[in-house]
Amino acid sequence: MSSRFWEASPGRTFVGRVSTGADLVQEIEAFCAERDIRAAWVSVVGALQHSAFAYYDQAAKSYVENSSDEHHELSAFVGNISMREGRPFLHAHATFSSRVGETVGGHLLPGCKVWVGEVTIREMTGVELERTPDEVTGLALW
Amino acid sequence: MSSRFWEASPGRTFVGRVSTGADLVQEIEAFCAERDIRAAWVSVVGALQHSAFAYYDQAAKSYVENSSDEHHELSAFVGNISMREGRPFLHAHATFSSRVGETVGGHLLPGCKVWVGEVTIREMTGVELERTPDEVTGLALW
Amino acid sequence: MSSRFWEASPGRTFVGRVSTGADLVQEIEAFCAERDIRAAWVSVVGALQHSAFAYYDQAAKSYVENSSDEHHELSAFVGNISMREGRPFLHAHATFSSRVGETVGGHLLPGCKVWVGEVTIREMTGVELERTPDEVTGLALW
Repeated sequence: MSSRFWEASPGRTFVGRVSTGADLVQEIEAFCAERDIRAAWVSVVGALQHSAFAYYDQAAKSYVENSSDEHHELSAFVGNISMREGRPFLHAHATFSSRVGETVGGHLLPGCKVWVGEVTIREMTGVELERTPDEVTGLALW
Repeated sequence: MSSRFWEASPGRTFVGRVSTGADLVQEIEAFCAERDIRAAWVSVVGALQHSAFAYYDQAAKSYVENSSDEHHELSAFVGNISMREGRPFLHAHATFSSRVGETVGGHLLPGCKVWVGEVTIREMTGVELERTPDEVTGLALW
Repeated sequence: MSSRFWEASPGRTFVGRVSTGADLVQEIEAFCAERDIRAAWVSVVGALQHSAFAYYDQAAKSYVENSSDEHHELSAFVGNISMREGRPFLHAHATFSSRVGETVGGHLLPGCKVWVGEVTIREMTGVELERTPDEVTGLALW
């Protein structure tokens, strides 16, 4: 399959703050479900009390899960919203930094406990991004 | 307090370059003050001559400051503009990479001396993001 | 030279997926050339089979090239499109994370082989971002 691009229309813009102690991924997904945001670009400036993230083993086609109980700054975040099994799904990758600045990173999992989470969501309309099984990677992709 | 989200309207879009030798945070904040940008999403592609960044100690509720005189690529950047004490305030986190690719990261402080700083600013209007003291975290949040 | 900012108009929005095995930088640039996207902000959520990235030696004014054959998550990505030698040029920096979450990062080079690459492109119109030689840094800047 070759690369595919679609033109979208700019939709609504949301800005918000995930409450201290809440689950970063679940909270963003719940808001998107509530407001029927089906495709979006998402960014977060924040810090976590607990981090849960994964690495996809491309040979084994399975995720390896990592986590950290250290308090971290979110020193990077890239994310998008698309539909998976009928619900808005947040696909986000992030980098986490420590007291001395050391970083780890990966694919964000549910279970990231927020300290501060300042979120921007830019909706895209006019496209249908539906995750379905992709044989080549073993992932759910559009 | 539970998570809160607001719908914003897309405002102006700015693109620019912070001059070599200038202070990354101060320069973006000064531009936002000059153009009355009170809420925005900010991104930077660039490199630094000197890096100043912090880690928030969630237990002590105080910042630990780090810095580096090594020249760094900015290998990640997430940021937003909101109002603090009546002026536009840049809240940004970043990751810095070295000659061999090693990374450190954290909360950007004034004092980051720019080598190259290519900036995109997307204003949001119709929302009032005012930082006020938050008891739970000890930070200034909206 | 002091910092310079320009106001742009929001242009088209594109979302897409770079095919598995393709070159991340070349594929985004080829799409921008095809659709005449001359200025844009670009974000990617994805993973790579091979990573090629660089560090700019500010004293020597030359790039040091790094690469990794390890499979990586893209744990951060910031990028923009402007014109260089008459063609759309992707300037992007990224952070790459390993199986245990360890990160490296830098200036993205052609040669990054995609595993998954979910791309958002926000065009900016009404500005002409043309890269020309900059004496101070030795780079091609606008």
